[in-house]
Amino acid sequence: MNPTDNYPSKALRDAVEAISSLPGVGGRSALRLALHLLKQPADKIHSFAAAVDNLAEGVHYCKTCMMIADGDRCDICADSRRDHDTICVVESVRDVMSIENTGQYHGVYHVLGGIISPIGGVGPSDLTIRELKERVKASTEVILALSGDVEGETTAFYIYRQIESTGCRVTTLARGLGFGDELEYADALTLGRSIAGRQPFKP
Amino acid sequence: MNPTDNYPSKALRDAVEAISSLPGVGGRSALRLALHLLKQPADKIHSFAAAVDNLAEGVHYCKTCMMIADGDRCDICADSRRDHDTICVVESVRDVMSIENTGQYHGVYHVLGGIISPIGGVGPSDLTIRELKERVKASTEVILALSGDVEGETTAFYIYRQIESTGCRVTTLARGLGFGDELEYADALTLGRSIAGRQPFKP
Repeated sequence: MNPTDNYPSKALRDAVEAISSLPGVGGRSALRLALHLLKQPADKIHSFAAAVDNLAEGVHYCKTCMMIADGDRCDICADSRRDHDTICVVESVRDVMSIENTGQYHGVYHVLGGIISPIGGVGPSDLTIRELKERVKASTEVILALSGDVEGETTAFYIYRQIESTGCRVTTLARGLGFGDELEYADALTLGRSIAGRQPFKP
Repeated sequence: MNPTDNYPSKALRDAVEAISSLPGVGGRSALRLALHLLKQPADKIHSFAAAVDNLAEGVHYCKTCMMIADGDRCDICADSRRDHDTICVVESVRDVMSIENTGQYHGVYHVLGGIISPIGGVGPSDLTIRELKERVKASTEVILALSGDVEGETTAFYIYRQIESTGCRVTTLARGLGFGDELEYADALTLGRSIAGRQPFKP
């Protein structure tokens, strides 16, 4: 069904149009979701809408690392047990959540808010690189945890050039075969780097 | 990422929890959608929330056919050019929209609001069958446009039993190979019925 079709109710049409504006949600899915919501009790619909509405004013950004927070400072930056001399530079909020999820990192973060992309019209000044340069002065290590694609590598290279003069140690994520990956299905680039970056076997 | 993980902000967590309550939307997708909304301007977030919120009070049901409407009467029942003596019985609001989309039907509808399903705990009294019986008395034809599965057929049979005494003509949707379907991929049941219900060739 086409989302521009005649809807039996204006309220339904408005809701379907709003929902289908979300990325990856087509007209049919939006209609299915709107009709699902419609079947719920009114208070459930209201609390759903309120939760979404609250995104506009209820979410703040940490003034230090630009991570999403409840106030001006995120829980990670406010945690004195974390290593504030190690800064992990990531593209987005989701990346912070992914790394936190591993439980393997105990430093702090810096969210760039995007990646340098000439095609996407995103330049270095659109990211929080200036703020990063200020923070790096007081740090011992910067981990560039960016994607392994061309834009990620370009951004990493740009940042490296900007901060190398500080003498801070700059590292990047280990690249190679994922755990559980089968050798025969690995792409040549990844496998090639895995061989070139081979490490001592620890039995 | 697990939706029960620690979120950096309560407002974000509430939104993700609300969105992931939708059918077919998992924790990861909900997070992606919430972060997409978060990137929008505040007024866009508010209008999205308002459109959903309005579903609770802005949608009414037609008192005649139980279709979604802006008031007590839907556009179809209010349209004097339609054939009010032919009632097409469907399971849901979406079915009405699908049939309307074909442009091939000019009668009115009756939305059952579900289908008889002993496993799902839906009995005849949960549907609008009593209201249908009243309407059928003044009609000439009832089209049972229900799904071709066991529950659809059970519901059709039940309704037929309830209304056969009225003398109203009862029909059902033609079943067979879809247009463009390839014979070799058709399931045996559909193909068997297509042969049994073969029709005169019209060149």
